[in-house]
Amino acid sequence: MSIFFAPSVSRWETFEITLEGPSGDNGFVDVRLSAQFRLGGRRVECHGFYDGQGLYKIRFLADREGAWGFSTLSNAASLDGKSGEFTVTPALPGRHGPVRVARQFHFAHEDGTTYRPVGTTCYAWTHQNEALEGKTLKTLQTSPFNKVRLCVFPKHYDYNTNEPPRFPFEGSLASGWDFRRPNPEFFRHLEKRIAELDAMGIEADLILFHPYDRWGFSTMDAATDDFYLRYLTARLAAYPNVWWALCNEYDLMQAKTMTDWERFAKIVQENDPWDHLRSIHNCRPFYDHSRAWITHCSIQRQDVYKTSEFTDQWREQWHKPIVIDECAYEGNINWGWGNITGEEMTRRFWEGAVRGGYVGHGETYLNDREELWWSKGGELVGSSPDRIAFLRKILEEGPEGGINPIDMGRSYWDVPVGGVTGEYYLFYFGFNQITFRQIDLPEDRLFQVDLIDTWNMTVTALEGWRSGKVRVDLPGRQFMAIRAVRRLDLNA
Amino acid sequence: MSIFFAPSVSRWETFEITLEGPSGDNGFVDVRLSAQFRLGGRRVECHGFYDGQGLYKIRFLADREGAWGFSTLSNAASLDGKSGEFTVTPALPGRHGPVRVARQFHFAHEDGTTYRPVGTTCYAWTHQNEALEGKTLKTLQTSPFNKVRLCVFPKHYDYNTNEPPRFPFEGSLASGWDFRRPNPEFFRHLEKRIAELDAMGIEADLILFHPYDRWGFSTMDAATDDFYLRYLTARLAAYPNVWWALCNEYDLMQAKTMTDWERFAKIVQENDPWDHLRSIHNCRPFYDHSRAWITHCSIQRQDVYKTSEFTDQWREQWHKPIVIDECAYEGNINWGWGNITGEEMTRRFWEGAVRGGYVGHGETYLNDREELWWSKGGELVGSSPDRIAFLRKILEEGPEGGINPIDMGRSYWDVPVGGVTGEYYLFYFGFNQITFRQIDLPEDRLFQVDLIDTWNMTVTALEGWRSGKVRVDLPGRQFMAIRAVRRLDLNA
Repeated sequence: MSIFFAPSVSRWETFEITLEGPSGDNGFVDVRLSAQFRLGGRRVECHGFYDGQGLYKIRFLADREGAWGFSTLSNAASLDGKSGEFTVTPALPGRHGPVRVARQFHFAHEDGTTYRPVGTTCYAWTHQNEALEGKTLKTLQTSPFNKVRLCVFPKHYDYNTNEPPRFPFEGSLASGWDFRRPNPEFFRHLEKRIAELDAMGIEADLILFHPYDRWGFSTMDAATDDFYLRYLTARLAAYPNVWWALCNEYDLMQAKTMTDWERFAKIVQENDPWDHLRSIHNCRPFYDHSRAWITHCSIQRQDVYKTSEFTDQWREQWHKPIVIDECAYEGNINWGWGNITGEEMTRRFWEGAVRGGYVGHGETYLNDREELWWSKGGELVGSSPDRIAFLRKILEEGPEGGINPIDMGRSYWDVPVGGVTGEYYLFYFGFNQITFRQIDLPEDRLFQVDLIDTWNMTVTALEGWRSGKVRVDLPGRQFMAIRAVRRLDLNA
Repeated sequence: MSIFFAPSVSRWETFEITLEGPSGDNGFVDVRLSAQFRLGGRRVECHGFYDGQGLYKIRFLADREGAWGFSTLSNAASLDGKSGEFTVTPALPGRHGPVRVARQFHFAHEDGTTYRPVGTTCYAWTHQNEALEGKTLKTLQTSPFNKVRLCVFPKHYDYNTNEPPRFPFEGSLASGWDFRRPNPEFFRHLEKRIAELDAMGIEADLILFHPYDRWGFSTMDAATDDFYLRYLTARLAAYPNVWWALCNEYDLMQAKTMTDWERFAKIVQENDPWDHLRSIHNCRPFYDHSRAWITHCSIQRQDVYKTSEFTDQWREQWHKPIVIDECAYEGNINWGWGNITGEEMTRRFWEGAVRGGYVGHGETYLNDREELWWSKGGELVGSSPDRIAFLRKILEEGPEGGINPIDMGRSYWDVPVGGVTGEYYLFYFGFNQITFRQIDLPEDRLFQVDLIDTWNMTVTALEGWRSGKVRVDLPGRQFMAIRAVRRLDLNA
C-alpha cells in the first residue's frame, strides 16, 4: 500500500516521510520504525523517529538520481509495511552533497567539488533568543565561514549564564528531566538552524556532547546517552551539511570513559547511512585520532605560543586532514584562549594553510550584552574575518587538490612553504619583517610570482615570468607571503 | 732580587709585571714563564706571555686586599727568580670583581653584588676600523647592555666580507700564517677593547672559536689550538670582566670533535686562576650543559616560534643559569634569525625574565654600509633597546636574588609568573590583548600592585594595598605585565 507520494526531490536534498501512528504513551521509546529505500540493487536502511502528536518521520538524503522505492518496518501496525515511490532529480546548482575526506588530507563534497573548510565557532548560538539567532545568521551570510561548530546541548560557562529558551527533554531542572521524552520542538528548532546554514552553504559541525553544563546533559546514564544519540541521528543524518563532532573537550567529561566514546562512535556510524564526517575534540590530550571511525583530526591547540605550526607534524602522525577548530580566539577576555589579536589569528590561519591544514576562527570580544560570538553568535567586530576571507580567496584561486607542505630543504628552516611541487608555491613569512629573500623555483619552467600582503590584503605581481633562483624584495612588514604559480603552457 | 715594585693596585684591577727577556727567535714558543703570587697562605700560579720586542708579561687580577709577594719561574735566566711585593688596596667604587654563578640560576660579582646579564652581540666589532669601533663604544656607553659577545677571530659571513685590520698570527692568508708567532699588536688591541668595556661596566663574553672563517683559524691543528688558548688565557685571565665562550655554534665547527672541546675547556680552566665563567654555544643541538666545566647555559633558540618560553624547562634540565644569547635578532634581513620586530625581541626578553633566565639582544637592520650591529657594531636603530633598558630597570628594582618562575597552578597556564613567592610577582601577558584578569596573591599580607606597559614603558600603580584575589583591569593592548610587591612591614 502506497501511503505517501512525492513526485520528486532533487539530489542532495532531504526527503521526508511523515506517518501517523500511535499517539499514546510513549512513542519515543515504545515505537520502533525504520524504512528501506531502494534504487536498483542499492538498499539504504533508515531509522525513523517520533516527532510528537502522533506523527512519525523518516528522513532520507537523496544521494542518487533515479526512481526510488521504500517500505517501512515497525512494531506499530499503523506504521508497518508502508511503501511508496519517488524520483530523485538532478541536483540544483550549488548542491554538492555531504563533505568527504579527499586526497588524504583534504575534503571534497560527494560530487567531487573541492571543499576547503573555513570554520568558526558559535557553540551555543541556537540556544539564544530569536533576534540574536537571526543576527547570527545575518552575520554568517556575509562572513567568510563555510563551517560552524555548534552544540546540541545548551552551554553553561563564563559569559553563558542565560537560560536557554528550550530544552532537549521534557521536564525542567527543578522538577527533573524525563530523559525518555525528547522535546520535538527543541530538535525542530535545531534542524531549522542547520537547514538555514545549509542554505548558505555552511557545514554544521554538530557537537553531540560537551562538559559546560548545569542541567545534567553531560552526566546522563549510558542508556540515556545511547537513546539520545539514536534519536538525534535518526532526525539529522539525512541533512547534507551535518558533521558529527562527538564531543567538545572530551577529556573534561568526567562522567565518560573511553569505552563510552567508542560506543557513541559506533552508534553514530550505525545510524548514519550517509557516513557524515566524524571527529572528537580535545581540551588537553588529543584523542587517539588513528581510530578508524575518526575521519579528520579536530584539534584544540596544546601550547600557548605554537598551534598551527604543528600542522605538518600532525599530518604525518595521523595521515588524516588537520582541522584546528580552536587555535585560540580573537578577543580581549581574561583567558589566553580568548584574547589573541586579529593579526595573530590571521597568522595562525596562514601558518596552518601553508602547512596543509585548516584553521578555525572564533571571536571573544567582551561587550555589555555578554554576547560573545564564540558562544552566543551575534555580530563580528574583530579584524581577522576580512583577512580570513582574503585567505579563502587566495586558496580558492590555488590548486584544486589543496595545499600540501613542500620540503624545500634546510635553507627554508624559517619559512613554511606549501603548494604543489613544480606547480604552485606559497611562502609565508609570518611575524618576520623581512626585506628580501631568494626563493628557489624549478629552472625548467616559468612562474608568475606575486607578493601577498596577508594583512593589508593586496597582491602585487612581479614583472615578467620567473624561474630558478628569484630574489624578491619585500617591504619589511610582518605577515607577507610570496606566491609562485606555474605559467600555463600555451601549447598544452 | 726584587726587580719590580708597584706601590699598590686597587682590588679587582689587573696588576701587570713586565720583564725584559730573550728577544731572539722564538719567545712565544721557546720561553716558559710563570709566577707565584702569595698572600698569607694563599698561592696563585700565573702564566706569563711574550709580548714581543723582548718584553715578557705576567698579569694578576688583584682579588684580595693585602701585601702580596710574587716570584717568577722561567727557563730563561733573565726571567727566572724575579720577585717583588705590592699592596692591594680596597676596591674603587663600582668595582666588584668577576661575575660568578649565584643562587643556582643567577649571577653575582665576586664581592656579592648582584649582576643581571643584559647582553648584546657584536661578533666582529673589534675587527673593524678605528672610527667604527669608536662608534660602537659610544653606542654601548648609553645602551642598556652590560655584556657583549665578541669573537677573538675575525668573521667571514654575509655582510662580513671586509678584511680585518690585523690578524692574530704573523703572516698572511696568501703567504701562510706562522701559527707559532702570535701577533702581539692584535692581542693588545683586543685587550684594549675589553678594558674599555670593563670601564663601562660591561662584561666581555669572549668567543674563542667560531666557524665563520675564510682565513683558517677554525681549522688549525690541535697543537696550534692548544697553544693559542694558552697564549690567550695568559694574556686575558687577569681581566676582571672576561667570560670564556668556548665557541659560537660549536656544532658547525666541522674540524673539531667533542674531545677537542673538552680538552679546550680543560686548558682554559687550568690557565685561569680566577675561574671566569665558561660556556659553549650551539647552532642546532645543545652541547651537554651538564658538563662540570660549563658554568651557565649559553643558548641559541632551537625553534622559529618559541625561544625564551623554554627557559623554565631548561633550568629544570640543567640546574644552571639560562642565558639565551641568541633568541633571534631585531632586524629586517633575509633570514628568520635576523628579522624579528622590536616588539617580538622585547617580548622574548620579558618571557625569559619572568621564567628566571636572561635573554640577549642583537640587531640586524641592513644599511648601505653593511654595518649590522650584530657583527660589526656601530649604531643601534631598533626599537627594542629602549624597552630592554626599561626591563633592566624593572629587574633592578626587583628582588636582589633574582626572578624565579612561580608555579601558580593550572589557572595560570596562559601567563608566566616569576618572582619570589609571597614577596614579589611579575605576571606577563605577552602578545595577548587582555582587558582584565584576576590575580591570586597571598591573603595574609598586603601588596602594591602595578600595571606595567612593557612597550610604552609606563608603570601605573593601582590605588591602595591589595591582597588575596585582585581583579586588575588592563587596556586590551599587547605586552602588558602586572607587578605585585609586598608592602614593607613598618614595624619590622
